[in-house]
This record gives sequence, C-alpha cells and structure tokens, in this order.
Amino acid sequence: MGFSHFKDGKAVMVDVSKKEDTSRRATACGSIEVNSETMDLIVNGGIKKGDVLGVARVAAIMASKKTHELIPMCHPLLLTGADIDFEIDEENLVIYAAGTVKTTGQTGVEMEALQMVSTALLTIYDMCKAIDKEMIIGRIYLKEKTGGKSGNFVNSKI
Amino acid sequence: MGFSHFKDGKAVMVDVSKKEDTSRRATACGSIEVNSETMDLIVNGGIKKGDVLGVARVAAIMASKKTHELIPMCHPLLLTGADIDFEIDEENLVIYAAGTVKTTGQTGVEMEALQMVSTALLTIYDMCKAIDKEMIIGRIYLKEKTGGKSGNFVNSKI
Amino acid sequence: MGFSHFKDGKAVMVDVSKKEDTSRRATACGSIEVNSETMDLIVNGGIKKGDVLGVARVAAIMASKKTHELIPMCHPLLLTGADIDFEIDEENLVIYAAGTVKTTGQTGVEMEALQMVSTALLTIYDMCKAIDKEMIIGRIYLKEKTGGKSGNFVNSKI
Amino acid sequence: MGFSHFKDGKAVMVDVSKKEDTSRRATACGSIEVNSETMDLIVNGGIKKGDVLGVARVAAIMASKKTHELIPMCHPLLLTGADIDFEIDEENLVIYAAGTVKTTGQTGVEMEALQMVSTALLTIYDMCKAIDKEMIIGRIYLKEKTGGKSGNFVNSKI
Amino acid sequence: MGFSHFKDGKAVMVDVSKKEDTSRRATACGSIEVNSETMDLIVNGGIKKGDVLGVARVAAIMASKKTHELIPMCHPLLLTGADIDFEIDEENLVIYAAGTVKTTGQTGVEMEALQMVSTALLTIYDMCKAIDKEMIIGRIYLKEKTGGKSGNFVNSKI
Amino acid sequence: MGFSHFKDGKAVMVDVSKKEDTSRRATACGSIEVNSETMDLIVNGGIKKGDVLGVARVAAIMASKKTHELIPMCHPLLLTGADIDFEIDEENLVIYAAGTVKTTGQTGVEMEALQMVSTALLTIYDMCKAIDKEMIIGRIYLKEKTGGKSGNFVNSKI
Repeated sequence: MGFSHFKDGKAVMVDVSKKEDTSRRATACGSIEVNSETMDLIVNGGIKKGDVLGVARVAAIMASKKTHELIPMCHPLLLTGADIDFEIDEENLVIYAAGTVKTTGQTGVEMEALQMVSTALLTIYDMCKAIDKEMIIGRIYLKEKTGGKSGNFVNSKI
Repeated sequence: MGFSHFKDGKAVMVDVSKKEDTSRRATACGSIEVNSETMDLIVNGGIKKGDVLGVARVAAIMASKKTHELIPMCHPLLLTGADIDFEIDEENLVIYAAGTVKTTGQTGVEMEALQMVSTALLTIYDMCKAIDKEMIIGRIYLKEKTGGKSGNFVNSKI
Repeated sequence: MGFSHFKDGKAVMVDVSKKEDTSRRATACGSIEVNSETMDLIVNGGIKKGDVLGVARVAAIMASKKTHELIPMCHPLLLTGADIDFEIDEENLVIYAAGTVKTTGQTGVEMEALQMVSTALLTIYDMCKAIDKEMIIGRIYLKEKTGGKSGNFVNSKI
Repeated sequence: MGFSHFKDGKAVMVDVSKKEDTSRRATACGSIEVNSETMDLIVNGGIKKGDVLGVARVAAIMASKKTHELIPMCHPLLLTGADIDFEIDEENLVIYAAGTVKTTGQTGVEMEALQMVSTALLTIYDMCKAIDKEMIIGRIYLKEKTGGKSGNFVNSKI
Repeated sequence: MGFSHFKDGKAVMVDVSKKEDTSRRATACGSIEVNSETMDLIVNGGIKKGDVLGVARVAAIMASKKTHELIPMCHPLLLTGADIDFEIDEENLVIYAAGTVKTTGQTGVEMEALQMVSTALLTIYDMCKAIDKEMIIGRIYLKEKTGGKSGNFVNSKI
Repeated sequence: MGFSHFKDGKAVMVDVSKKEDTSRRATACGSIEVNSETMDLIVNGGIKKGDVLGVARVAAIMASKKTHELIPMCHPLLLTGADIDFEIDEENLVIYAAGTVKTTGQTGVEMEALQMVSTALLTIYDMCKAIDKEMIIGRIYLKEKTGGKSGNFVNSKI
C-alpha cells in the first residue's frame, strides 16, 4: 500500500470522481495546557466568562470552511454542519476541544475536523499569550469518522 | 493583569498604533507520531524521499501568510521571511517540525510561527491518512522569540 | 422559537445534512444617497458612463462567492447564478441596487444576495469618496426568496 | 474635480506611492431594525446575553482585514487596531453598531470601518433570520476620520 | 451568437441552474522559456532535482481551487481531482506544463485547468527570477475537455 | 549562483529583513489571440464596447493583491498602485495587456505585475470562451522594473 496523494511519485489531488456521495461525519479532539493565572482569567476572570472560548469557537468554525485552502491536496467540500465544544479541567490546567464536521460528498471531513480543533487551540493561545507564552498545544487527533468507502473509524489509541 | 484582547469585556484587535516598528523573529515547534508503515514510506518509500515533507513545507509557508485571516484578533503583518525544518526520528516514529518567521513591524510573529508548524503537521496527516488515521499531533509550542517591547523570550518549559 | 445558530447557548454552523437539495433563489435590495456633484459625474461625467457601476457590479458578484468566508455561520454553497442591477434616481440623488443569487442546495442564498448588494454599495462609496464622504448607504433588505422548506417569502414591509 | 479611481476613463488602484505614512483612524456607523421577538431573544433570550453580538463582533473584526479583497480599488493596509461597539435601543427595536479602525499608512481606513460595520449587521441578520426575515439594515455611513492629506473629517449630515 | 457572460450589456455570473450535473474534465497546457543557466540548475543543480517543479506543482493544485475567486464570472465548483505534469526540453530550454482538472457539476473546468497551468508557470518564474528575469511564459491554451452540453472538445489549432 | 528560494535544498520564503525599503515599480506584458468573431464582439459587439476589458481590468487589479496567496514563496507587500492597459490589434486578432504595479518595500513587484497580466488574459478567455475555446494566451513577460538592490531592469529580449 502507498500514499494516495502521490501518483508516480508526484503530488496530486486524488481523483475521487468515481466515488459516491455519502453522508459523512468526523470528530477531532485536542487540548491546550495553560498556567493557573490564565485558567483563572478564562474561568472567573475580569472579563465575562466564556469570551475566550466564544472567540475560539467562531474562529474554529470559520477555519473549517478554509481547510481546502490550507491543506494542499484537500478537496473542496460543502460542509453541512460544524460544531465545537470545550471542556475545562481547572485542576489540571487543561482546556479540551472536540469538533465535529458533517458533509454529504465524495470525500471525508477528517481534515476539516482537525483544522477546526487546531484553529480553536491557536486562537486560545493568541488571546492568552499576553499572560503566558509557555502554553502547550497537545495531542490533536481524529477521534472517529463515519461514512465513505472505508466506513466507520474509531481511534483505538485513545 | 488581564487579557490584552478584551477591552471592557469585549473582543478587540488590540491598538498597536503607538508601538514602534522593530525587527522580530519567532520560532515554534511541533511533532507528529506516525506508525512504522507510514514512517517507512516517508523515509524509504515507493515515492521519492522527502515529497511528503516537501508538500508540507510549501503548505506551511503559505499558511504563515494567512495567519491573520484565521486567528481573529491577529494583526496583518508583512512577513520578511519564513522557513521550516523537519527532523525525522525513525526509531521513535516521530517527525519534528521547527518553523521560524521574521518581520519588521509593530507586533510579533508568534502566531505566524505556530500557524506554520500546525499547518505542516496537518498536511503530513492529510498525505498519510490513507495508511494510518491514528497519527497524533502533539506538543506545539513557541520555542523562542526576539524583538518587541517584551524583548526576548525562551520557553523555559521545554 | 429560538435562534437556529445556537445549540445549548453556543454558536454552531447549523446541521443541514438532512435537508433536501432544492432550487433556491433570493433577491436583496439596497441604496446609496449621493450628492449632486457625484450623481452628475456618475451619469454624465468626465469618465464614460457606467464605469462606477461596472466596477461595483464585478465586486458584487465576486463578493457573493465569498459570503461564507465573511458570515461565520453561513454554509458554503455552489452558486449557480448571480446578477445585479442598478437604477439611478437622478432627481432624488439615490442609486438603487437589486441583486439576485441562485443555487441548488440544502440552504438558502439570502445572505449571498445581501452580501452582493452590500458590497456593490460599499464599492460605489469607495469610488466616489474623493468627491463626497457624506454618502449614506441605506435600507438593505431581503426582497424575496423561493425554495427550501420554509417556501416562498416576499418582504411585506417594503 | 473628478473620480480619483479612474485615469483617462479606466479604473485604477490609485497611485499613493508619493503620499506620506501618517497615523489614521476612521469610524463608521450603521444600524439594523429587528422585530420585538428577535429583540427579546437577543436581550433576554434563551441563549446567554450577548452571543449574537459576540459573533457579529468577531466577524466584523475579521472582515475589516479583508476589505482590500472585497473592494476592488482599495489598497492593502496593515491595520493597527479594530474595535466595534453595539448599542441596543430596545424601545425602538434598533441595534446600532459603531466601528473604529486604525492604521499607519499611505491611505485611509474609511472603507475598512464601513466594511466592519456592514459585516457586523449582515452577521446579526444571518443569526436572527430564522425568526424574522424582514429586518432592515439602514444608514451605514462614515462618522469621522483623522489623518491623511485631507485631514480630519466629521460627517455634517448626521 | 454573443457573449454568455453579459445580459443586456451587463456582466453576470451566467445562470446554470437548469443545467445538469455531468462528469467533466479539462486539460490545459503551457510553457516557459528559460536560459541555459536556469535550465541547468533546475535539472542538475545544486539543489535536489525536481524541487522547483515540486513547489510549482503544489502552487498549481492550490490555485485550481481558487479559480472562482480570481476570475469574476466563474462559478464555484467542487473539484474532484487535479493533477499537473511537467516535461523538460533541455535542448530547446523550454519547460512544458499540462494540467488536468475534474469535477461533477453544472459547468466545466476549463478555467480551473488554465489557472493551474498559469500558476505553475508563474511559480517557476518566481523561483528562478534571481538568476534570469527574461524568461517568457508562452502559449497557454485549452487542449481538450469532456462533458457538459457542448460535449467533447479537442483544440484543433495545436 | 543559485536559486534564492532554496536554502540547503529546501524551499524557503527568502529572508529580506535586512533589505531596505525602496520605491519599486514593475511592468509586465502579455497577449491573447482571438478569432475574428470574438474580436468583432469585443470591439463592435452587441454589448457596449469595452465591457470584456472592463471586467478583465477589475479582475487583474484584484489579483495583483492576491499574488502572495498564489505564489508560495512571494512576500506579502503593500501595493501602492496598480494599473493595466489594453491595446487591441484588430487586424492581427490580438489583444495586448500591460500592467504596472508599485510599492515601497523590501522586495520587488515583478510577480504582482505578471499575476495581474495573467489574470487579465484568463478573464478575457473566460468571458469569450462560449464563442471560441481555441484562444491562445501567449508571451507573458516582465518588461521592466525599477528600484531595489539589483536596480533597474529592461527586458532585452523584447
């Protein structure tokens, strides 16, 4: 087996024109470690609760629509839904993000879900970096996907 | 101290019009864990060595120029250089990326460096996902920056 | 009844994956008030008639294709037609714009039509602002739409 | 006097290369009329107060950075700040927006301020249109600007 | 017969909503003339063989997805494949490019194929211009297309 | 001498941070061969004279601002002027385009001028392709440039 994105050793946007339109969904996850001062401001801070995550959510949804502009061999797709949730682990100073994207199309939305989570975490970094530049973004991965020829997938490593 | 991106509780693109133009540089790092089949194809594979990383490099440099389109409160900047290196740890099945961005401007390029590394790793994921969907992107962080009012920064956690 | 773009209080790009593809059309209208010197130059001016509106038309059509990049919760759509008309009321110093967008898809093109008209009027402003900065853009609204689950709509307020 | 955006009757992006970099600021205003049900949901609704306006604010700031991509003859500029405020007139069912943009550059930021306000109002429309499609966006105008050869401007019509 | 992109003398994005979705493919070709020093560096140079063309290939594929953003009256399309080949004529100092794009949709992909080739050649120019600024890009044309109401086309001039 | 866009064999956006801001200008040229029916419609056609070229002009100016998004190793620049002229050779069935771009910056605007001309010609192709698909775009080249360390350049081949 080899890379689908190369044909005779050159990069291509893979021909999916023979694949059928199916309903597809993918969920990706990721996290960012912050320090206690940042966590405190995000949760109880001078600003009203949720705004950092509110801005990150809008950025993430907008980025999901830009995936094919960023990832060279990604096909453009008509996303039919995009949704991201955050979970705050105050004790361990971690914010978790889980993003789900849907489409009906000839290729999957794994990259869109990963792009969404990645942009959410980068936006959190941006909005908090005046306080702490040592945040670490970590463990971004595909959690599960449904639809398409390869069928359902659940990440067995997590 | 509070978040610079909020003014009276609302999100703003911070006013940097009084800040001086200085020469700035930032370096970010990140990594992706792959399985042995993927590592083998990247390093010795049927395709010519380096192509996956070659595509990822182009994607990364192009993404650095799109940072202010993706991160809502980021200022547009005239990047004067962008450069990304990969290091392959075959034994531990990890690919490391380190990206450096430069500008002469009123704000720093931390986000551009992080965006570059993030896009490189997502592109590697995209190009290898036909073989393995369980790759994990991990530990994206700012390594160091120079220039600007806050001066030089070296990440003490790494 | 509540906002469709929020789910449990958080912004989402609404899941339309169960909606059927239907043929859809939307028309939006708007206007800009100019002073008599500007009106004169647009209509009889030193430059050949129609050029300000010609540039505005191109800008408007191009903007209709960017709607989902600008409006955070808008779905990407394959527009199958876009068309904009201007009407000049010389006596009252008003330029009217009416833009129609079509698609076959799972959501409507109201925002695309509104975006088209809005960009046309902003472009007119831009091209005439050296003469008059006090132009007023006014009364941008959806005139009618057809297609989709909610069926036909004609604005009753106009 | 004629249009600066035409040279011998053809559209051009005006040559500003001889103009000096100066500190510039522009403020634009606009409004949207909603019905009482929409106003109620925005102010006291099932969702937490401010979210519609929170999403509109992010969209507006991001759109200010895209102005030169939308308005054909607009010069690209390095915005050094962008900020938007909303005022809710519950009694008269109107939401007002006022956006301010700053730069240090060779041309002004009038269009960026107008683009910001326009996108904020279109985003409010989008997020509320499931409830009411008869909202009217009205009276978008430049309120004031400072900097540049033509100096300060305050709109005398408002 | 007249121009399809004008309706009563004004530019429009032609209404294709009544056209059927068909499988479509288009191939465009082009070339660039370089000097012998540049040719030598591309083929045997200090850098590893293929990199100039590798970067041009990625740029070309990414540009094919941006065609509707660049060509005002082009419809957005979901490309289902994009692929570009280069042929080096060392003796005559010419690099040839041939790009093929596929979609299933209501309009063809001629412009996408032409955009792909055009961007590939401009990227080669950019990467070599430090050595030679007198390269000439020449003879970009549609070679063939299949699908759509007008059926198959093979350029008879070439 | 070697390629400036490669450092140790890998593609980079060259570091120009030590270069001085200078006033720069570049002019590129190109042409498209059409058939007599197309030429007749462009010049005397049912539509009003100049519209095809009017749309091409707007597209070209807008594309000049997108050059760094399309050409991977191009630096973003603040264009201070963009201007394109067409010349119609009715007898020989050729339309010529000449585009000039200006900036004050650390790198030149050769690519922006070439991008502008390339997009103008592609837009002409798009608007006329319903009549003739066998148009040939030919001989796109840099005519001259001024400014920058390498000084003035006039193409000796033309």
